[in-house]
Amino acid sequence: MALKSFIDVLPNSHFPIQNLPFGVFKPEPSSAPRPGVAIGDYVLDLSEIASAGLFDGPILKNSDCFQQPNLNKLLALGRPAWKESRITLQKLLSSTEPKLRDNANLRQKALVPMNKVELLLPIAVGDYTDFFSSMHHAKNCGTMFRGPENAIPPNWFHLPIAYHGRASSVVISGTDIIRPRGQGYPSGTSPPYFGPTLKLDYELEMAAVVGSGNELGKPVNVNEAADHIFGLVLMNDWSARDIQAWEYVPLGPFLGKSFGTTISPWIVSLEALEPFACAAPKQDPLPLPYLAEKVSRNYDIQLEVEIKPAGVEDSTVVTKSNFKHLYWTLTQQIAHHTINGCNLRPGDILGTGTISGPEPDSLGCLLELSWNGQKTISLKGATRKFLEDGDEVIITGFCKGDEYTIGFGTCSGKIVPPLP
Amino acid sequence: MALKSFIDVLPNSHFPIQNLPFGVFKPEPSSAPRPGVAIGDYVLDLSEIASAGLFDGPILKNSDCFQQPNLNKLLALGRPAWKESRITLQKLLSSTEPKLRDNANLRQKALVPMNKVELLLPIAVGDYTDFFSSMHHAKNCGTMFRGPENAIPPNWFHLPIAYHGRASSVVISGTDIIRPRGQGYPSGTSPPYFGPTLKLDYELEMAAVVGSGNELGKPVNVNEAADHIFGLVLMNDWSARDIQAWEYVPLGPFLGKSFGTTISPWIVSLEALEPFACAAPKQDPLPLPYLAEKVSRNYDIQLEVEIKPAGVEDSTVVTKSNFKHLYWTLTQQIAHHTINGCNLRPGDILGTGTISGPEPDSLGCLLELSWNGQKTISLKGATRKFLEDGDEVIITGFCKGDEYTIGFGTCSGKIVPPLP
Repeated sequence: MALKSFIDVLPNSHFPIQNLPFGVFKPEPSSAPRPGVAIGDYVLDLSEIASAGLFDGPILKNSDCFQQPNLNKLLALGRPAWKESRITLQKLLSSTEPKLRDNANLRQKALVPMNKVELLLPIAVGDYTDFFSSMHHAKNCGTMFRGPENAIPPNWFHLPIAYHGRASSVVISGTDIIRPRGQGYPSGTSPPYFGPTLKLDYELEMAAVVGSGNELGKPVNVNEAADHIFGLVLMNDWSARDIQAWEYVPLGPFLGKSFGTTISPWIVSLEALEPFACAAPKQDPLPLPYLAEKVSRNYDIQLEVEIKPAGVEDSTVVTKSNFKHLYWTLTQQIAHHTINGCNLRPGDILGTGTISGPEPDSLGCLLELSWNGQKTISLKGATRKFLEDGDEVIITGFCKGDEYTIGFGTCSGKIVPPLP
Repeated sequence: MALKSFIDVLPNSHFPIQNLPFGVFKPEPSSAPRPGVAIGDYVLDLSEIASAGLFDGPILKNSDCFQQPNLNKLLALGRPAWKESRITLQKLLSSTEPKLRDNANLRQKALVPMNKVELLLPIAVGDYTDFFSSMHHAKNCGTMFRGPENAIPPNWFHLPIAYHGRASSVVISGTDIIRPRGQGYPSGTSPPYFGPTLKLDYELEMAAVVGSGNELGKPVNVNEAADHIFGLVLMNDWSARDIQAWEYVPLGPFLGKSFGTTISPWIVSLEALEPFACAAPKQDPLPLPYLAEKVSRNYDIQLEVEIKPAGVEDSTVVTKSNFKHLYWTLTQQIAHHTINGCNLRPGDILGTGTISGPEPDSLGCLLELSWNGQKTISLKGATRKFLEDGDEVIITGFCKGDEYTIGFGTCSGKIVPPLP
């Protein structure tokens, strides 16, 4: 029988005792930010748990990593510390353990209703890297921009292509996204278009949060790369397609992306995802030895994107995809990222790139769904080619088990017009 | 007559009282890092000056920004604070001011011989952006890779092209650069090349250090952009040309750059550079209104690159260039970077891109000098197409005035083989 908490958790909750994702929150608007884990409809305040001396394992006993405004210090402690915290918290929250269950005073201080708290960016992001690891997405975009013959560039099957993103504009779910201004392709001999983007898009992604880093000059072995991942979040890599199309040759995307990237507040650990691991797609050609892993794994994480236009009651699901569609695994991404000696640091995030699947309804962005504005997408009460002001985009992700769900909550953002 | 310090400064010193660049250093290996300014052959310890109560201006009087391990806190205070610190320090170090000159005890504590200190990265780098603002460099690289007809892409004259670089691997001058491993183009039907890069290169750049940032969603006006720049440093954006050539389509440079970027330790303020301001090149076509500045300025900064192979006594100057060759100005770069609402933060760095000039000896990297390995470059006691293990690359930069020199010191790094 599945482990059970003394806290009531609804059967469809994303946050059963098997999950315990980490985040950072403020219980009151005036409180200092502090780490917490989600359990059912509550957030467990880890600063209170630490103050009460309940982190009593050998690594975390005297650590101040739970008295910090972000998780970076816990992340830097490495996998043994993360495992210890998980074991401690799963025990503390279980139905058979009296320490917290029977301590009304501590429960009162440490368990805060989730709908009362403000969730914050859980990490100070050092560097943000974005990969391009869905073959379906690469093929669709390539077909649109370079034709079906040159759809996927020859390097794509040999290495997980990536670029550096902008760390400063990574924001937490719920933050409004201001429609960016910028340049677009000139038509004829006119100067380039300039104004608010006319092709604002979402990108359905997930991101790995780097836990322990590596030293400059010392690559991470692909078979040990999982130990560097603290967990995963949902990510929306908002994109202005007209800005991106005009600027990206020859140095890649820049202002078409850097106006905002939204992540979900709860970092789900690899331990919680373990029961949902599955085989990664077969790779042909075989990857070079530094990318060839003993076991190549993905996770079966169902992903959905909904759009809710302003003034429309119901949202519409526009994408249904799955993390398992990724061609390059998270561990291959890390091995590739560091093969040149590049150092990762705790709190770095590695985006997967848009996760599109093979089915028409599994395309992970409007660029693909509307085929660059050539098709119209029907929503309840509206139609779209790209996003309009007032549109809210909500990403959800979860692993469905027989006895419980491991969920990521939501990653949402609403489009607002540019400042005057 | 020029302002003079009570400290002897040799006529050719990079660091007269007119310069006073900011850095961070450790006086002893066991000391905590602290801010300092360079004066002649000494470093003035600003933590000691602050402790002695000598920052007595209205903004800095009670600030702890000089008791920090980096300059980010001072940077965040903005231009009025930077100006106040400069006025205070110029007065304190002048030959007519007795406060420090006649206080033997404080002089003993606060003035440390530069050859005794360890210079550290002066800032915690949030994001590192690299522009592509030299027309000569863009034209040469484009000619090599896409032919003379498509040398400069059509967007280049409309916007200062840039990409996000890697912040974690920005290192201080003097740090060894480990030759990166990676993939290069396959030949024929073989798998891609894999191994240590065969085309290791330097790139002569300078970088603006962002002082005060901007809020997400609020672009910086091009005519106010200079107020966001704390100062400039020399930069070497080490590049592995074979890795870069194979990986960069379609998302731009990644591992070909992210193994290391070296900056010089002393940040020279715009105030110190002001006497060396000069007109920027005429731009044709006229830039869009958000990039059109009332006065468009560069600085006359002479730049040199020397290579010193291992075991060879003398270094050889391989590049003689000048900052004034840049087509896009620093202020246009900032206006463009933020036009989409992207936020800059104190400590961000904005690289200029390789600064090549029009003359054959002013090309800013070996890729251009050797024309991608087709020509051989003669050094004293050696020849090169690309960098070999043991090579030291030393960048120098300075503005030569009638009465004094405003210099940047050096930005150097030695190539070492990859770890086994």
